[in-house]
Amino acid sequence: MTRLSELGESHIISRVLGRNPSSTHVIVGPGDDAAVTAPEGRLVSTADMLVENEDFTREWLDWQKLGVKAAAQNLADVCAMGAVPHGLLVSLAIPDDTDIADLEALYSGLFDEAERTGAALECTVPIIGGDLSSSKLIVIAITALGTVPEGSAILRSGAQPGDSLYLAGTVGRAAAGLDLLFAGLRRETAGPELRPLIETQLAPRPDYGALRVIGASAMIDVSDGLSLDLARVATASGVGIELDRALLADLIDPLLPAAEFVLDARSANGTAATAEDLALSWVLDGGEDHGFAASAPSRQSPGVGWRRIGRVRTGHDVSLDGTPVPASGFSHFGK
Amino acid sequence: MTRLSELGESHIISRVLGRNPSSTHVIVGPGDDAAVTAPEGRLVSTADMLVENEDFTREWLDWQKLGVKAAAQNLADVCAMGAVPHGLLVSLAIPDDTDIADLEALYSGLFDEAERTGAALECTVPIIGGDLSSSKLIVIAITALGTVPEGSAILRSGAQPGDSLYLAGTVGRAAAGLDLLFAGLRRETAGPELRPLIETQLAPRPDYGALRVIGASAMIDVSDGLSLDLARVATASGVGIELDRALLADLIDPLLPAAEFVLDARSANGTAATAEDLALSWVLDGGEDHGFAASAPSRQSPGVGWRRIGRVRTGHDVSLDGTPVPASGFSHFGK
Repeated sequence: MTRLSELGESHIISRVLGRNPSSTHVIVGPGDDAAVTAPEGRLVSTADMLVENEDFTREWLDWQKLGVKAAAQNLADVCAMGAVPHGLLVSLAIPDDTDIADLEALYSGLFDEAERTGAALECTVPIIGGDLSSSKLIVIAITALGTVPEGSAILRSGAQPGDSLYLAGTVGRAAAGLDLLFAGLRRETAGPELRPLIETQLAPRPDYGALRVIGASAMIDVSDGLSLDLARVATASGVGIELDRALLADLIDPLLPAAEFVLDARSANGTAATAEDLALSWVLDGGEDHGFAASAPSRQSPGVGWRRIGRVRTGHDVSLDGTPVPASGFSHFGK
Repeated sequence: MTRLSELGESHIISRVLGRNPSSTHVIVGPGDDAAVTAPEGRLVSTADMLVENEDFTREWLDWQKLGVKAAAQNLADVCAMGAVPHGLLVSLAIPDDTDIADLEALYSGLFDEAERTGAALECTVPIIGGDLSSSKLIVIAITALGTVPEGSAILRSGAQPGDSLYLAGTVGRAAAGLDLLFAGLRRETAGPELRPLIETQLAPRPDYGALRVIGASAMIDVSDGLSLDLARVATASGVGIELDRALLADLIDPLLPAAEFVLDARSANGTAATAEDLALSWVLDGGEDHGFAASAPSRQSPGVGWRRIGRVRTGHDVSLDGTPVPASGFSHFGK
């Protein structure tokens, strides 16, 4: 084991950036005051942060997966604009007694996810800059940059009544995984049925490839839960959204064993709910899988990777089989 | 007092972004998955983070100044490339019992510094996106974006033997301010001679306006100290750098009263140093004022705001009046 405190900052940076891909868009990469790149078209930019003890805990920590998660939550936001990623800026604060091997695993996770995005969307996503500092807590703040042709960004505001509503990837699995972790299950001890849910919580894998084929009128990265994120689309577009319970079955049913496990673990506390109800609440309110929800004209086939889950209608709310769904996904601070 | 926990995330965001300027470059601002902007020329991007208890403490905290500091350290990096700022992405983790008025003061500091940059460089610097989450510790991660005409970025690697070496703004004042704070002095209790040094530590004010006039061959934001940052220029450019003690006098002499104060406070611990030595070490090794160091051909007048502090020569090290200066500015982790 070699602690970061035994190494110099520049040595650490050259170790962790060993896998950084070259990109024709990068004119000046890491090492100057700032990066210089050549974006084509419009610039798409987003920033998100993971803070130890808020967004993950040392107890569940898998460094490579943490890197995947940090990259995925930002890349998903860029891609949900219909953009192609261009580069990442990575600011990291980390204890100086961290093993360099753990830090390398974290950056491996970043590169793994960047490569996966690049393979799906035929682009290269280098780390173009950032910041490394010592801190008692681990904090990872990432900015993802991307480009989109002028006039082609897919916003939350374009949904039209009559559009179909589609989902690429999943919802609810990461939330189920989180409840399994809270119930005491761990990736190492979980069986083959439940372990993938914990994996999704620790390292979501958005379906970037599906984004190549949809002609979406509106799109959103579902990070806070369908109910809340679709309410954002409804508000931005001035429409209502109707979810179809039957079309969500393929998302709900695979979560039933996890719901039963969690309810068994909770039963000592006397929590009353059915496995069906819990699985449905994960699907409606659980983000962090980073599925993509999109509306598209119904006459049009959305392409591989997309499942229909409902439709866009007039109105201003989100409902499930006609019953309003409260926007109760994840929200920081009060409501 | 209204705590953040009593307000919703979207309400908080609309409160703190009330002063956000409009910009013709911004196509989609805060509120979608990502921002869409129209950069002209090359994109310049940089990211930096401030973590409570590492980069600042609650005890010294002035929310507006913290905002200034967070913005300045990123804007200075963009400007040190010869670029004009384009926008900021602000990721903030903050305790949910924070008073909304404190958060507004923090954003006021961000806007104050962005406006000051904009006034100096004739640009508008809106907040185009970011992330707000709750956390026990305050963490501010900022990405600054800017643009520079193709081929015009000023790198660390362009210094030529024979160039003069210039500084805009100051060095050493923030380091003196930090030592005054460690010695128990506070902004509120300091006299008019020492208070400005503490102010510089809490809220540096880079001289962005000076950047309009220099025809620099190389430039760096001095954030880690002259000795370390000039060593970076020397390495990147393959040159040596000679500092002139007489030319540094205007930077050193104003720090002597602070050095005497700090040495008096330390004397109980038996630390032996002269005020001259301490003031010189602040100037050589103290960053955080975010002065700009630049090389430029000697025949050329550098313009208003720049002072000559030395020259570029052949070699590979940094020296002061012929004596090598160890690169002992601020560095995270070991050496």
